[in-house]
Amino acid sequence: MTVSSESSESSESSESSEFSDSPGSPGGGTARFSINQETVRQLSLPELAEACASLGVGGVGLWRAPVQKYGVEATARLVRDAGLTVTSLCRSGFLTAADPAARRAALDDNRAAVDEAAGVGTDTLVLVSGGLPDGDRDLYGARERIADALAELAPYAAERGVRLAIEPLHPMFASDRCVVSTLGQALDLAERFPAEQVGVVVDTYHIWWDDRAPAQIDRAGEGGRIAAFQLADWCTPLPAGVLLGRGQLGDGSIDFRFWHDRVAAAGYTGWTEVEIFNEALWDRDGREALAETAERFRAHVL
Amino acid sequence: MTVSSESSESSESSESSEFSDSPGSPGGGTARFSINQETVRQLSLPELAEACASLGVGGVGLWRAPVQKYGVEATARLVRDAGLTVTSLCRSGFLTAADPAARRAALDDNRAAVDEAAGVGTDTLVLVSGGLPDGDRDLYGARERIADALAELAPYAAERGVRLAIEPLHPMFASDRCVVSTLGQALDLAERFPAEQVGVVVDTYHIWWDDRAPAQIDRAGEGGRIAAFQLADWCTPLPAGVLLGRGQLGDGSIDFRFWHDRVAAAGYTGWTEVEIFNEALWDRDGREALAETAERFRAHVL
Repeated sequence: MTVSSESSESSESSESSEFSDSPGSPGGGTARFSINQETVRQLSLPELAEACASLGVGGVGLWRAPVQKYGVEATARLVRDAGLTVTSLCRSGFLTAADPAARRAALDDNRAAVDEAAGVGTDTLVLVSGGLPDGDRDLYGARERIADALAELAPYAAERGVRLAIEPLHPMFASDRCVVSTLGQALDLAERFPAEQVGVVVDTYHIWWDDRAPAQIDRAGEGGRIAAFQLADWCTPLPAGVLLGRGQLGDGSIDFRFWHDRVAAAGYTGWTEVEIFNEALWDRDGREALAETAERFRAHVL
Repeated sequence: MTVSSESSESSESSESSEFSDSPGSPGGGTARFSINQETVRQLSLPELAEACASLGVGGVGLWRAPVQKYGVEATARLVRDAGLTVTSLCRSGFLTAADPAARRAALDDNRAAVDEAAGVGTDTLVLVSGGLPDGDRDLYGARERIADALAELAPYAAERGVRLAIEPLHPMFASDRCVVSTLGQALDLAERFPAEQVGVVVDTYHIWWDDRAPAQIDRAGEGGRIAAFQLADWCTPLPAGVLLGRGQLGDGSIDFRFWHDRVAAAGYTGWTEVEIFNEALWDRDGREALAETAERFRAHVL
């Protein structure tokens, strides 16, 4: 919702109306646009809150490092004063270590992340599961260690009103970031736990190529497992390291309306978060990048 | 088989015995090592034939461009004289064009590739299906156009003793090279045609992350659809453009024995081709790179 009195008279006001939605308003649903903080990482938290308010963006997905730096309580106050909903906290996880000490440290860090999520007022903590330990080639074993860790973390999170959201990452990240590569695998893990404790993230960037993903979205919807819906476009050539290859909506190969409609048909009524890691976007004025992202959302998703 | 009289007395002779296998010999099976030409692209065809003979490598997978340059008949003579089996010809395909003229050109080119495969004496033509046309976001439509093209090409190939081998490529190539991203998708396409006309390629690099791939190998084996088995390792960080990121066996995350055993258990008795695209490997002496690859095969696969 638009909270800045200045913006209500500014040139953005007409644009704002497209994205402003009172929480719980009937027209909300997946049309509710949320900006993931990392998309416009050049903005400080106060700048982000100000830009969201003036552009009528009602939701933000936050990241742990900038939240820790600004302070959890200060962040909570900032977003509350700006009228923003925190749609997720990114990201915890990395639960595949086999070494006992590394494993304990990871669990401790995940509990801290749960506390931070609760502290900034979101019910969704995004988990990137982790890759293979050095020299390890056993994807199956790594996935089982994630399940073991979830069994410890999920009740802890639930007690604090936070749901763990397993995010399958694109198979190109299977060795170094996330051994959970498909929505099907993520659901296989999540369904070992109560739906209110463990859900999944549907991110178009990671699943767009998968002909089984639409049916898995249906499965996730039926089980009440869709904890977050994120968007980024698929663009080639990929840059070295591939992490920063995510494209602005409309620049790549993904049919966002297809995925948006499928997620909505599966019963998802939460926010739609745009999460892009892209050097060119980061090099631009942050407010301008946010305005463009909102505009692309309107053009390619709604 | 070792055909060079020199090599039978050389230091490579003990190594050679590990890789030499008369076609049809009882001990052959998947232990039969074949070098894909692109792995050691720094070698000319005569240099490759000589290196294979002296190292006791009995199989080669060839590529169209160098074969065309050297001449199809001359290539056939060269490999025959060196006692080499041509385990596949790479690669044809790119069958996703929607434009009628581009489509006709692709079909013509594929028929030429079939002729070349028959000319060099292999029964296996590897197909990389093609990516999305510019501005197109419809993966499903693109896959159907591949099926339409196969219906034209498969009988033509079969008449010439050549089987089309659909190679699923890693999902990171879905937009720009190959909309067929999993073994399951490749089999869905192949099974629309007789098994002797259309098979699939099992390449560890493309499928290693996929928890469904083992069962799909079984399915392929039951249907007599495994036309080729190829190896490369998965290494990170991926280079820009990702095409040349394939690693030498043992340098990455793939458990080759698992896949080798699974393919053998599915009834595959053909050659195992090592196909690596890697600048560092290309920068080295070609014969040395080939010897190392054979050594890695022995250490990590058999």
